[in-house]
Amino acid sequence: MLRRGTIGLLALGLAAQPAGNLTEQYRETANKLISAAMVDQDGMEKLAYLCDRIGNRLSGSFALEKAVAWAAAQMNHDGLVNVATPRVKVPHWVRGSESASLVEPIQKPLAMLGLGGSVATPKKGITAEVVPVSSFEELERKGRAAVEGKIVLFNVPYESYGRTVVYRTAGPSRAARLGAVASLVRSITPVSLQSPHTGAVEYLEGVGKIPAVAITIEDALLIQRLVDAGNSVTVHLEMEAHMLPDAESANVIGEILGRERPEEVVVIGGHIDSWDVGAGAQDDGSGIITALEAAHIIHQLGLRPRRTLRVVFWTNEENGGAGGNAYRQWVGDAVRNHVAAIEMDGGAEKPAGFGLTTPGESLAALNKAREIGKLLDRIDAGSVQPGGGGADIAPLLQQGVPGLAVRTLATHYFDYHHSRADTVDKVKLEDLRANIAAMAVMAYVLADMPETLQQMAAGTR
Amino acid sequence: MLRRGTIGLLALGLAAQPAGNLTEQYRETANKLISAAMVDQDGMEKLAYLCDRIGNRLSGSFALEKAVAWAAAQMNHDGLVNVATPRVKVPHWVRGSESASLVEPIQKPLAMLGLGGSVATPKKGITAEVVPVSSFEELERKGRAAVEGKIVLFNVPYESYGRTVVYRTAGPSRAARLGAVASLVRSITPVSLQSPHTGAVEYLEGVGKIPAVAITIEDALLIQRLVDAGNSVTVHLEMEAHMLPDAESANVIGEILGRERPEEVVVIGGHIDSWDVGAGAQDDGSGIITALEAAHIIHQLGLRPRRTLRVVFWTNEENGGAGGNAYRQWVGDAVRNHVAAIEMDGGAEKPAGFGLTTPGESLAALNKAREIGKLLDRIDAGSVQPGGGGADIAPLLQQGVPGLAVRTLATHYFDYHHSRADTVDKVKLEDLRANIAAMAVMAYVLADMPETLQQMAAGTR
Repeated sequence: MLRRGTIGLLALGLAAQPAGNLTEQYRETANKLISAAMVDQDGMEKLAYLCDRIGNRLSGSFALEKAVAWAAAQMNHDGLVNVATPRVKVPHWVRGSESASLVEPIQKPLAMLGLGGSVATPKKGITAEVVPVSSFEELERKGRAAVEGKIVLFNVPYESYGRTVVYRTAGPSRAARLGAVASLVRSITPVSLQSPHTGAVEYLEGVGKIPAVAITIEDALLIQRLVDAGNSVTVHLEMEAHMLPDAESANVIGEILGRERPEEVVVIGGHIDSWDVGAGAQDDGSGIITALEAAHIIHQLGLRPRRTLRVVFWTNEENGGAGGNAYRQWVGDAVRNHVAAIEMDGGAEKPAGFGLTTPGESLAALNKAREIGKLLDRIDAGSVQPGGGGADIAPLLQQGVPGLAVRTLATHYFDYHHSRADTVDKVKLEDLRANIAAMAVMAYVLADMPETLQQMAAGTR
Repeated sequence: MLRRGTIGLLALGLAAQPAGNLTEQYRETANKLISAAMVDQDGMEKLAYLCDRIGNRLSGSFALEKAVAWAAAQMNHDGLVNVATPRVKVPHWVRGSESASLVEPIQKPLAMLGLGGSVATPKKGITAEVVPVSSFEELERKGRAAVEGKIVLFNVPYESYGRTVVYRTAGPSRAARLGAVASLVRSITPVSLQSPHTGAVEYLEGVGKIPAVAITIEDALLIQRLVDAGNSVTVHLEMEAHMLPDAESANVIGEILGRERPEEVVVIGGHIDSWDVGAGAQDDGSGIITALEAAHIIHQLGLRPRRTLRVVFWTNEENGGAGGNAYRQWVGDAVRNHVAAIEMDGGAEKPAGFGLTTPGESLAALNKAREIGKLLDRIDAGSVQPGGGGADIAPLLQQGVPGLAVRTLATHYFDYHHSRADTVDKVKLEDLRANIAAMAVMAYVLADMPETLQQMAAGTR
């Protein structure tokens, strides 16, 4: 009874909230966009071409150059205008040959991936005892006496990506500060089939850089069991990883020019680079293809919003963020004319809605975005929650541009993330279509609606 | 209402069935066994030692020899008597170096495992176009014209292991019969993180042997997409796999001697060998350790059943079955005194109960086994269903010995099976304990109860 009663009250609450103007005004257009997106084939074909034929595309790689050229051609082909590839200098890290193995008390190769940005080992490698820790607190408690000259293993159970990734990014310098000669991190993932996950290491200035490696959950637990059983565990590590001089890359930009206020811009996009394993399908091929295909569908339907809709594929999100910063520089003072930025960088599982960040956390703007969200109720993808953004649009948000992030269920995203398993088969056609629908509707209405989110936020401040 | 009514009728049905004599007679003993098993630590420690320190143990390997010696010592240590390691000749297949890669239309290494028993490629490898098929019917329809000189890829979606594994075992010879030069099979698993799964190939006599390889779900789908998009896809394959002369191995046998009828025997066990990747933790380290630890607990509690309880670790289950056949030879006419055989070879996930096969599918024997199963209701592991056995006890079942298989939920068993991911962390302590409890109770009561299952079956035939 209580349960039924509660549901009744909730339903009443929803029913009592009248449909907003935007919901009414854009229903027909939104339905056209959704209907087109839900039978779209082009998006998946583009994603398959990018991931299967061009493959993974780390900053500095030839594949990323190919991807940039292909993306610009594709934008032109899809009817976008002002297609440009402004050059961006990006860090150029190269993995090189790498291996790790247990040498005591057993001999066994370890499945591993060097972390992006890691330094190399000496030519002959590093052979040292492993000291596992389950937290930074334990590391500090053990202290220099236990760690100096050793390899630290951060064997930290996955809680969430946000909570656990600090052991990958900050762990190596924390270990080095106590004299460790290398750092292993249990891969930042909830599940494993002996699959290592890479990602960036963030060395602290003033602390010596030590080789930094991800190993699998299985091997981290194996080392822990061996140590717990009283064994001294020794690992041998060989890595050729190194930085080359900065490389040339580019952001890829194309537009649907606004029919009334072309100088005002809604930016949508994701990042075109990826790590150097797998195919960068969920991270972030699916994001850029969703943005491109949303614009493609808007164009195909002959729709032209009041303001300019700009698709941007940022480069170098994974290991530098040069693309996002370069875009901010590239637009200069015109950042004032950015009325919204939508970043998609969490994979293309079934979409749930959007996160929204506005200056002063304006409730008026949030409610207006929710009116747009209601247009997506048909595909259950219209929930707009406070808080959203992303690495590539952060420089815009710092200037007061309202920022949105696509939110998906992300049930399996971190199973594949930064690993060899991030391949096209992980993106489901129906989910990609729903993301394209959600992106197309949100982007179109933000670019077309009479007032901007900023104006609404200003009106209620 | 219908639902509630149905549940009521079912509950009534169960309630109407009176508790059998065995259930009443053995409740106290069973509870002691279960209580001991559910706090057991030794089982997991043994499994970890076997898998972590000895590692995988393919027939012919030094690790299998070590495992045999360790197991015999462990049986003695655990209080078993008549510990023996009767020698068994086993096939000795060696994987050697192996690799596969896409060479057209893209260059990419393929994650792969040669199938157990596969022949090698020529030294320079095999380079040929790939013809994907989704069934034997499609293979036959395409015929020699499409297949000759090519590499056949069996890209068959996983339905169940039993339904799909035929493409791994029989696929290579089916392809060879039409002139194929090598055979790839999509790994027989429901999920993948770029993880290949090996397993035995069964070449047909009279058909030329061709190299046989498992690739990952991801790469099978990639090849399929490339072919579907109109590309000619070429793969290069290099394998050194070969057979050596038969090697020496052994079954490992130990007993709790029966107090009244020591010549009558209940056999429990699993297989001590494994594939040459991963650690053989679920397949079948968990099976042999469950059997050993069940006997260990019975011994520790000072229980001695009426008949002899014999623990057997069969060798060479994975690629020959020599251990199961050798055991049958070893017991000779005494097979008549085998009153039951329990094989555990499906991993140690949460146990559900047992499958039972008796001559003539005797209902009386099944009901008697269900009386024993009721003793396991406390841990929800007592459901006894018709049909059960296993490769290693098949030669006994052919002689009329009642055979049982441990049944578990097996939700993830085939995710790890025959792959690098079959490691100790996949076996949960509480599940291993419950399996030990189920095995101990079933084995003890079968060995101790006044009448045998065979006698009951005979009485009702």
